[in-house]
Amino acid sequence: MLNFEFKNPVKIIFGKGQIAKIAQEIPADARVLLLYGGGSIKSNGIYDQVMSALTGFDVTVFGGIPANPEYEVLLRALNVIKSNHITYLLAVGGGSVIDGTKFLSAAALYQGEEPWDILKNKIRTDKGMPFGTVLTLPATGSEMNSGAVITRAATQEKLGMGGPGLFPEFSILDPLVVKSVPQRQLANGITDAFTHVLEQYMTYPAQAFLQDRFAESIMQTLVEIAPRIQKDPADYEAAANFMWCCTMALNGLIQKGVPTDWSVHAIGHELTANFGIDHARTLAIIVPVHYRYNFETKKEKLAQYAERIWGIKEGTPEQKAEQAIIRTESFFHSLGIDTKLSKYTDDYQGTAEQIEARFIERGWLGLGEHKTIKPDDVRKIVQLSY
Amino acid sequence: MLNFEFKNPVKIIFGKGQIAKIAQEIPADARVLLLYGGGSIKSNGIYDQVMSALTGFDVTVFGGIPANPEYEVLLRALNVIKSNHITYLLAVGGGSVIDGTKFLSAAALYQGEEPWDILKNKIRTDKGMPFGTVLTLPATGSEMNSGAVITRAATQEKLGMGGPGLFPEFSILDPLVVKSVPQRQLANGITDAFTHVLEQYMTYPAQAFLQDRFAESIMQTLVEIAPRIQKDPADYEAAANFMWCCTMALNGLIQKGVPTDWSVHAIGHELTANFGIDHARTLAIIVPVHYRYNFETKKEKLAQYAERIWGIKEGTPEQKAEQAIIRTESFFHSLGIDTKLSKYTDDYQGTAEQIEARFIERGWLGLGEHKTIKPDDVRKIVQLSY
Repeated sequence: MLNFEFKNPVKIIFGKGQIAKIAQEIPADARVLLLYGGGSIKSNGIYDQVMSALTGFDVTVFGGIPANPEYEVLLRALNVIKSNHITYLLAVGGGSVIDGTKFLSAAALYQGEEPWDILKNKIRTDKGMPFGTVLTLPATGSEMNSGAVITRAATQEKLGMGGPGLFPEFSILDPLVVKSVPQRQLANGITDAFTHVLEQYMTYPAQAFLQDRFAESIMQTLVEIAPRIQKDPADYEAAANFMWCCTMALNGLIQKGVPTDWSVHAIGHELTANFGIDHARTLAIIVPVHYRYNFETKKEKLAQYAERIWGIKEGTPEQKAEQAIIRTESFFHSLGIDTKLSKYTDDYQGTAEQIEARFIERGWLGLGEHKTIKPDDVRKIVQLSY
Repeated sequence: MLNFEFKNPVKIIFGKGQIAKIAQEIPADARVLLLYGGGSIKSNGIYDQVMSALTGFDVTVFGGIPANPEYEVLLRALNVIKSNHITYLLAVGGGSVIDGTKFLSAAALYQGEEPWDILKNKIRTDKGMPFGTVLTLPATGSEMNSGAVITRAATQEKLGMGGPGLFPEFSILDPLVVKSVPQRQLANGITDAFTHVLEQYMTYPAQAFLQDRFAESIMQTLVEIAPRIQKDPADYEAAANFMWCCTMALNGLIQKGVPTDWSVHAIGHELTANFGIDHARTLAIIVPVHYRYNFETKKEKLAQYAERIWGIKEGTPEQKAEQAIIRTESFFHSLGIDTKLSKYTDDYQGTAEQIEARFIERGWLGLGEHKTIKPDDVRKIVQLSY
């Protein structure tokens, strides 16, 4: 087991009918900015529940934060924060709204000239404007971590930020929201959370037995509840397990003491940038080919995963590992998610070389748990995904 | 899944050689009181490491906090805190030292006349004197929760306390300490942590699939590493997993969203009070008979536990459940822990009636996850343990 530090101070308020508890968590004298995305919260009743909970508070509303939260939109929200002397932020949405709110939390107290510098110069935020979240879309885990990814269309950049000051003070997770999430986004959410776990698990054995089993617990639960979620998103018990799995998949716990990979995300982001493919679907495209290409370094964990998640008990470790990759592809297919790039675009030729060139340009010369995956390897991995 | 709230802000600093990091966690101008227990930290080198890390700090030392931390001793420490204008507490020890330090954290800022009232009147502590811990004995999980149990010999009382102000600010978990822990205490620690998990798991199915699997992960890991720990406490990887299991077993996570029992602890405490039997050993005495006596209400979870922890795949659910109890007893035996009261004392006759009478007197009329275990049942359970 590797040395680690772990601290996660987010207060989780989980369950049916918990949205009303917002009022207990926000200071009575706060000047609140409620942030949301595309407006689905107005049709599914969440907006009304939140506004009802905020009766008596000084509330300003800012909607329209897009998927892959966009810097120019967030700058408009930042102006509202400053001109209205906002003191507390409330994100009501999925990962994009929450990530955008984290940026605003940092930018609101940032002393520099240009808030983009927080991302460009990798400035960690030790203290941000306090904020809470009401999660409406289980997937990213942003509701219980201190990281965010922000996009700037003008310069084609998509950069990460974070810091101990960017944990939500509270997050309300009401699984009743799941029933109003479109099937496509549910499939994406399951895939996103599953791949988050894989990135922190599918490396090499590090004798972190408990962390391995926690990671496997999340994957097993996702595999178990996926058919129930697909059949009936109003299945409360399945929804509750789905929601808690997504949170636990990326709240820091399972990555502590173990090596992590994150190559799948690094490569997948490029497919979103090129073709606008949903983030989760890019992960499903890269996972199988990444594991096939790096089979030798990952085969021990692949075999363990084969046995414990997919119940594959027969064969050599290599045969189990290969079977596990096939079962993972089948799992994504069962969610209605294709795992070949050519299923998403006819224009894929040259993508691999383009991504290779970008990685060279950025100096990303060694990815993965061993930092040995070179741009040349990345090209070959992407080619395998066609 | 039941509704729940979860917040645990403890900063865990885990791994080899981490004790030196104390200095980064305590304010430079703090007036520190270092608290410890029986003095083993002086022979195993921990004391020297801690004092070295505290070079330059204003440090007062208070040793001699006994197992089952005793109120009269703690009052003497409280006097030191007040007379020396202490501002920060540092517990260096196991659960007893940490629990005692939590009491002092609360008592130091308590405005009332008699600090015992915090326990007697169940006063929750929202703000205590800040404190950190250096864990020297994995077992209780106190290093990452906000609860404590304090004993008052004069009145034969043993009461619990807690509150959101009683989380350690940080806890340093260095698995290298395990090699200097006596075998008896290692066996106790494994049993204590294992039973903590059972109390939060062995109830009835609540469709909390992820929590079940997390609980099973801890038990599986403890079963897996127990022989390694016994064979060689200097086996760092086994020690690291043991330590992290003990912390995760009682930091609040696995109890969220599920029913819990805690009858084993309620009954076991009485055996410690009567006979001075080690806490963990009282749990091992009560677990099997409690599960046999309440077989009907627990058999579904017992059967799940049989399959997932002990690999019992054959037989009816009842047969699996019965086998699982036998395997649990064997596990305790493998640690050198007897599971019959008569193995610890010849003076056991009348114990069951005495505990029944105490429970009636205290108004403990319904224990367990269904609140249906009456004092009459408790008597029968204890009788089965003879």
